[in-house]
Amino acid sequence: MAPGAVSGKSKVTIVGSGNWGSVAAKLIASNTLKLHSFHDQVRMWVFEETLPSGEKLSDVINRTNENVKYLPGIKLGKNIIADPDLENAVKDANMLVFVTPHQFMEGICKKLVGKVNKDVEAISLIKGMEVKKEGPRMISNLISEQLGINCCVLMGANIANEIALEQLSEATVGYRENKDIAEKWVQLFNTPYFIVTAVQDVEGIELCGTLKNVVAIAAGLVDGLEMGNNTKAAIMRIGLREMKALSKLLFSSVKDSTFFESCGVADLITTCLGGRNRKVAEAFAKNGGKRSFDDLEAEMLQGQKLQGVSTAKEVYEVLSHRGWLELFPLFATVHEIAIGHLPPSAIVKYSEHKPMLSLV
Amino acid sequence: MAPGAVSGKSKVTIVGSGNWGSVAAKLIASNTLKLHSFHDQVRMWVFEETLPSGEKLSDVINRTNENVKYLPGIKLGKNIIADPDLENAVKDANMLVFVTPHQFMEGICKKLVGKVNKDVEAISLIKGMEVKKEGPRMISNLISEQLGINCCVLMGANIANEIALEQLSEATVGYRENKDIAEKWVQLFNTPYFIVTAVQDVEGIELCGTLKNVVAIAAGLVDGLEMGNNTKAAIMRIGLREMKALSKLLFSSVKDSTFFESCGVADLITTCLGGRNRKVAEAFAKNGGKRSFDDLEAEMLQGQKLQGVSTAKEVYEVLSHRGWLELFPLFATVHEIAIGHLPPSAIVKYSEHKPMLSLV
Repeated sequence: MAPGAVSGKSKVTIVGSGNWGSVAAKLIASNTLKLHSFHDQVRMWVFEETLPSGEKLSDVINRTNENVKYLPGIKLGKNIIADPDLENAVKDANMLVFVTPHQFMEGICKKLVGKVNKDVEAISLIKGMEVKKEGPRMISNLISEQLGINCCVLMGANIANEIALEQLSEATVGYRENKDIAEKWVQLFNTPYFIVTAVQDVEGIELCGTLKNVVAIAAGLVDGLEMGNNTKAAIMRIGLREMKALSKLLFSSVKDSTFFESCGVADLITTCLGGRNRKVAEAFAKNGGKRSFDDLEAEMLQGQKLQGVSTAKEVYEVLSHRGWLELFPLFATVHEIAIGHLPPSAIVKYSEHKPMLSLV
Repeated sequence: MAPGAVSGKSKVTIVGSGNWGSVAAKLIASNTLKLHSFHDQVRMWVFEETLPSGEKLSDVINRTNENVKYLPGIKLGKNIIADPDLENAVKDANMLVFVTPHQFMEGICKKLVGKVNKDVEAISLIKGMEVKKEGPRMISNLISEQLGINCCVLMGANIANEIALEQLSEATVGYRENKDIAEKWVQLFNTPYFIVTAVQDVEGIELCGTLKNVVAIAAGLVDGLEMGNNTKAAIMRIGLREMKALSKLLFSSVKDSTFFESCGVADLITTCLGGRNRKVAEAFAKNGGKRSFDDLEAEMLQGQKLQGVSTAKEVYEVLSHRGWLELFPLFATVHEIAIGHLPPSAIVKYSEHKPMLSLV
């Protein structure tokens, strides 16, 4: 049954209210006002915080229509209702948008068991699922399994603050079987400056969002070694090829064409040009690998976490476990550099372990 | 018959001795010394010039082993013989490497008619073929047709000076039918820092080398408008998609996978990060489109030519002639901005003319 089929109008709840969650709220709020198939009002679950002023964050969002802590200066839309009560926020929803840090999702799902409508549709905007030895554990799967509901994904080259300023961007919605649901998510997110395309490949899209961070470490090392754009482009291309090859080995349903979408090549470009993984890896190489990633992360990121290094470790374990290490020299080398077994310059000694071309 | 099958060793001649030609000579010279299937000695045709010192360029190359004008500071290999006599340079060759500015190729081919061995194999490293109203005119076709010989291509993210410094890079060899010939070209060019892959798609590879310059204009406009990496990545991705879609419409043999090779995504990245098309387009947008590309080119490029603007014009004519304009909004918009019909900011008003998704 399509979401909202009973009332004819879908009710949307956003689970999360950080930087990206607030931008998602802005996009969604502008569309629910315009489109008849959605209720105007959108609930946003806020992890409650007390601001320095003594006020509650949710109260300030509801009073000023602005997330003063995570997206200051941007109006979210008057139809966004901040709600610090998770259970209350989701209880009437037909459509749930998950956009929290990924380490919170397990706890949130546990709290939501039995609390959501059975025919609710979900979408995950959360990048950075875990890659375990036996294979990746996708956030969309976690949501689906724990709550017994269908879950799409939305990924892409999405720097929240640029989208908040309404600068042109794109995103990819991934769906499993139901194309109508995918189109409904496209309607909910698509704006003239945020162009959304639906693709039937949840795993490919979600793996792009994670594996690109390993490539960004490699790109940052090249920057730190002061090689030119040529070498950086080669490393990014080899990285994209390994992303594609590993995704296809892990899930035979993954499509080549997904890597031409915003979630693939465009997100990779954004992440390798800017982004914290690139930045810290650059510093690591400039220091000749003598200061650890942990050390540099603590100094440079003010508490933000570096995904690429931990993902590289997890990917290395998968590759090692399955006997695929020599098929993925770039992924393997990133991890070996990060743990100090190889010098940063090893990243451009690529041909010494050229992979089997048949994989590519 | 494989090149050099009679003697067992192939003789290589390089036609061209500019910046990229000299780097190609260095790569080739190192390989012919190592590999038994090639004659050590490699001839390089030099368009003769008299240097300020009064010496001839070819004499200086032969004396110093260095192309002091186009690649100073780099030893080419003692087995490179500079030869200012085109006919003499090619007469014994089984393998011809064409690497001249593309506007010279028609004249060179005319001079070579009847002067080359009938079973000689050729490869073109020349980017920037012409796109005529009825379709593109490929350099490899020009060589094949005028000389009655087979012609492969080599393209990729190849900034000559970076490769001269032996920094990691990749390239793509395109071939038509004979995979053995392609492998022979790979042997001739491949080194530990220059990784060459053969792909059966001459047209796709050659079109990448030309169409990327139009995308670089778009990327430069985004830079000049001071949009972020997000928007730039979106424009590069949309550009890559239009490159792929147009190539496939023009030649049904073109493969999607070609665009994942060095000649595709990697060359696009290099060209959109650095490169003169990007640079002049950035200045054009910063000036609000008030100074023409011709004007900026004259001021900024010291006589070098801007390919992207003229290619955009040629592509526009093809699209217009075939009724495809609305399928390629990015390509069409670049030309309309360049001729002043649209402001530079139109490049990010993409969704106003979103193409048919079926094409993609």
